[in-house]
Amino acid sequence: MTITITAFERSPDGGMGLARDTRVRWALEEVGQPYQVRLVSFRAMKEPAHLAIHPFGQIPTYEEGDLALFETGAIVFHIAEQYAGLLPDDARARARAITWIFAALNTVEPPILDLVTARIVERDKPWYAERLPLVEDRIRARLDQLSVRLRDADWLDGAFSAGDLMMVSVLLRLRPSGILDKFPTLAAYVARGEARPAYKRAFAAQLAVNTAKPSTA
Amino acid sequence: MTITITAFERSPDGGMGLARDTRVRWALEEVGQPYQVRLVSFRAMKEPAHLAIHPFGQIPTYEEGDLALFETGAIVFHIAEQYAGLLPDDARARARAITWIFAALNTVEPPILDLVTARIVERDKPWYAERLPLVEDRIRARLDQLSVRLRDADWLDGAFSAGDLMMVSVLLRLRPSGILDKFPTLAAYVARGEARPAYKRAFAAQLAVNTAKPSTA
Repeated sequence: MTITITAFERSPDGGMGLARDTRVRWALEEVGQPYQVRLVSFRAMKEPAHLAIHPFGQIPTYEEGDLALFETGAIVFHIAEQYAGLLPDDARARARAITWIFAALNTVEPPILDLVTARIVERDKPWYAERLPLVEDRIRARLDQLSVRLRDADWLDGAFSAGDLMMVSVLLRLRPSGILDKFPTLAAYVARGEARPAYKRAFAAQLAVNTAKPSTA
Repeated sequence: MTITITAFERSPDGGMGLARDTRVRWALEEVGQPYQVRLVSFRAMKEPAHLAIHPFGQIPTYEEGDLALFETGAIVFHIAEQYAGLLPDDARARARAITWIFAALNTVEPPILDLVTARIVERDKPWYAERLPLVEDRIRARLDQLSVRLRDADWLDGAFSAGDLMMVSVLLRLRPSGILDKFPTLAAYVARGEARPAYKRAFAAQLAVNTAKPSTA
């Protein structure tokens, strides 16, 4: 059955790989599943046809036969559950890998998202400069804890898993801020993720979309 | 095997049920599994023994034999996967229910968390009053979309699932703000969640901890 995902017709980051379809592309590349991409404009994302699949009007979505999913975490988990390569076989190790998916999305990403939102939406507000260090401190507190846990291991819990895929993806959002470079353990961890052939293919695929000449040109 | 979870020795909300152990208690009550609770102080949460189980020094955690998990979403999902009652049998319906767990935690909760954080950490900042409406607008945008999706259904996708458990839990955090009451569809949805006997038992159990006389008194 053909897998179809959605992605920005033109990503706000211009192809840096920070849009969330990259996470899904990466997962599909890790498990060796081909996929098609349907590009959606910002306007189309808020229209009924897309909202029927994604109630919050975002990308990515995932369609396979009569199954339609939204929410990156759920899609990556679904891929990891359906195809070998992203979750360990041992039940306990599997539960721990799933834990890291949730930790990436619900503990590490929220303060990072707050920073991203502030930079986009609150940049012209009078409090922007004064508030930024508070937000960055919250991020650093999480990165300190994550560094301690990772120590000198390659991945968070044994072999590379969907948990690492998600954590690396979340940390990548920090690169433009320069914060990640202050945590050498985590910077090296992210670099290991980026060095994976599956990540490189995913990154290249999203970049190709964003560097293509607009079809309306 | 005995299930042991951790909870605040004394919850910051004084027993309103907003601490995340309530979500895990609720899940365990829904599937009819008994559990033990180990209470941890704010100090103990940051000490090595607890950090070995929860790298971010939070509650709840989940221990069962030699399996130790952290992260509420992962714990609730683990319970839902192990015991009947929180995920549908049909594979597609199951994937959609899991989608709602992630949507609750990664799309709906972040702006709510931002509001909670602002109220606690930024209340005395000069920008607090001016920034608050921006944060609340982000929450309302999500609630509008969620209302449209829920419409007049009892639950998000067919029968009550772990996705509803998580969404109701996330929305409950909004009650002190008064925002939830402006969305009658969602307020009724939350009330349906709270009316479930399993929720009532979970709420009562956490309340009992928080209204007990301190053991050091």
